[in-house]
Amino acid sequence: MTEFELIRRYFTRPARQAVLGVGDDAAILRPTPGHDLHVSVDMLVEGRHFFADVDPVALGHKTLAVNLSDMAAMGATPRWVLLSMALPQLDERWLAGFAEGFYRLAERYEVDLVGGDTTRGPLTLSVTVMGEAPQGQALCRAAAQLGDDIWVSGELGLGALAVASRQQGLAEQPWFTACRQRLDYPTPRLELGHALRGVAHAVADVSDGLLADLGHILECSGVGAEVWAECLPSLPAIEQQRATLLPYLAAGGDDYELVFTAPVSQRASVAAIAATVDCRLTRIGRIVVGDKAHLLAADGREISLQRSGFDHFDQA
Amino acid sequence: MTEFELIRRYFTRPARQAVLGVGDDAAILRPTPGHDLHVSVDMLVEGRHFFADVDPVALGHKTLAVNLSDMAAMGATPRWVLLSMALPQLDERWLAGFAEGFYRLAERYEVDLVGGDTTRGPLTLSVTVMGEAPQGQALCRAAAQLGDDIWVSGELGLGALAVASRQQGLAEQPWFTACRQRLDYPTPRLELGHALRGVAHAVADVSDGLLADLGHILECSGVGAEVWAECLPSLPAIEQQRATLLPYLAAGGDDYELVFTAPVSQRASVAAIAATVDCRLTRIGRIVVGDKAHLLAADGREISLQRSGFDHFDQA
Repeated sequence: MTEFELIRRYFTRPARQAVLGVGDDAAILRPTPGHDLHVSVDMLVEGRHFFADVDPVALGHKTLAVNLSDMAAMGATPRWVLLSMALPQLDERWLAGFAEGFYRLAERYEVDLVGGDTTRGPLTLSVTVMGEAPQGQALCRAAAQLGDDIWVSGELGLGALAVASRQQGLAEQPWFTACRQRLDYPTPRLELGHALRGVAHAVADVSDGLLADLGHILECSGVGAEVWAECLPSLPAIEQQRATLLPYLAAGGDDYELVFTAPVSQRASVAAIAATVDCRLTRIGRIVVGDKAHLLAADGREISLQRSGFDHFDQA
Repeated sequence: MTEFELIRRYFTRPARQAVLGVGDDAAILRPTPGHDLHVSVDMLVEGRHFFADVDPVALGHKTLAVNLSDMAAMGATPRWVLLSMALPQLDERWLAGFAEGFYRLAERYEVDLVGGDTTRGPLTLSVTVMGEAPQGQALCRAAAQLGDDIWVSGELGLGALAVASRQQGLAEQPWFTACRQRLDYPTPRLELGHALRGVAHAVADVSDGLLADLGHILECSGVGAEVWAECLPSLPAIEQQRATLLPYLAAGGDDYELVFTAPVSQRASVAAIAATVDCRLTRIGRIVVGDKAHLLAADGREISLQRSGFDHFDQA
């Protein structure tokens, strides 16, 4: 099978939203007048972002999901993606599985795969996502304001707990299956991102860990935050181990929830949004004067964690 | 150095053409009304697309150049790029050199680096380029017509000769320096691509080899071609070895010239364009009834090559 046969067999489906899709020197897209284009890229490397033996269907899903999550964090509607892959060999069963997981999620959100690149090399996947939002309505990191509530969607720490469980042989834990499902099949919070336009101030997705991603909001906005440890949402099965597992909730990566700030005056709106999206929204802190996030225990003492998030160049 | 420090130090320059550049969940771009968006991605893997000891300045140049070449082949103006990198380690000297080569070319064409991703992993570089052209004016592969002339820009075979020279220890050849320069610093034919709007029918860039890339035009257009071996342009120093080196001229990859078809009635226009761009344009054949390219000797006999181009999954 040549590169062109590979693309034709597994990665060529009609691009309904493109002037020209896969197969020329470039894809041709027609942006919506009055909208801004939002673009982002995420690269996944075997052994760093996923285990070598991961189910290819799950990997196809996740490779796209982490990119759609960036669009959710901007309040943008994803429309087109490009996929570039370095593959160590041509494994047709693997390719079919990967394409299945990728397209299933793409079709759910009406996202077109319009182009890409394939080459032989150590397994590496890079997706570029392009989306749109009406001009001036983007949800940026730099928009947090003093006194804002801080909210987070869904549950925290599941992805990191799944990774740690696997690495440390904790698969017997009662929460393992739910965590593994979240690690393999994260849900991009696109409906939530849309709903937050005009309601939230600053938004980011939680890919590197809550405190790290909130930290980006704080740095961009020039503010600080207090975060209430006992409020961080997690699974009921994890509650009894909350104290031990707090580092995963506060600093674990791979959750793909949204963390956002909104003025106190929008609490009713946020509650109304929570009723329409398929994840809970939890108020976990507030924006204060300062330049970083302080994780506070119920008695107000500050909790110090060894690390605040995942860094791809961290040697640990 | 963390991932964020790396990005801040080497890959954050003002994005003059972006609403929002590096540093949020996505970049925000404002497409030009009445224009289509052209997008393409190319991935480069160490040991496959470049030698491990390549000068990082050259690699920075080439990583961007091969992507700009895709815009040239569409007749589009490149405006924005995203860069995702897997790096085996943080080598600041390497990063500084890579950024220098990348930005030097980006600034020459006023292209903004608006985002990207960095992670640890086997050295892999993936660039997404986004450009624009007025609606309906794209130069596509499917537009070749019977009777069209076939033209190619510049010289052919230099990139492949440089690779072969290096692999086979032919560095003593008189043409080696020129070939190595072309391999390391290919010139995207952007001025030519622009000039061909309204003149050429079908256009592709020569990345996998002349016959392979012309083959894509033929397949997309449902036509065949005759290509005149003795007309394939090369360096004067190579002329005396033309017969031996013909496979490199006809099927070598990594040239990043443009191959295009144009009606006979446009010969004067093509000549006029040749006078304004910094590369020669050579008529090398014509579009005929059929479904593939036939390489013909001066006496009309067909020349058969072992392979027509470079395929990333070819085991050879």
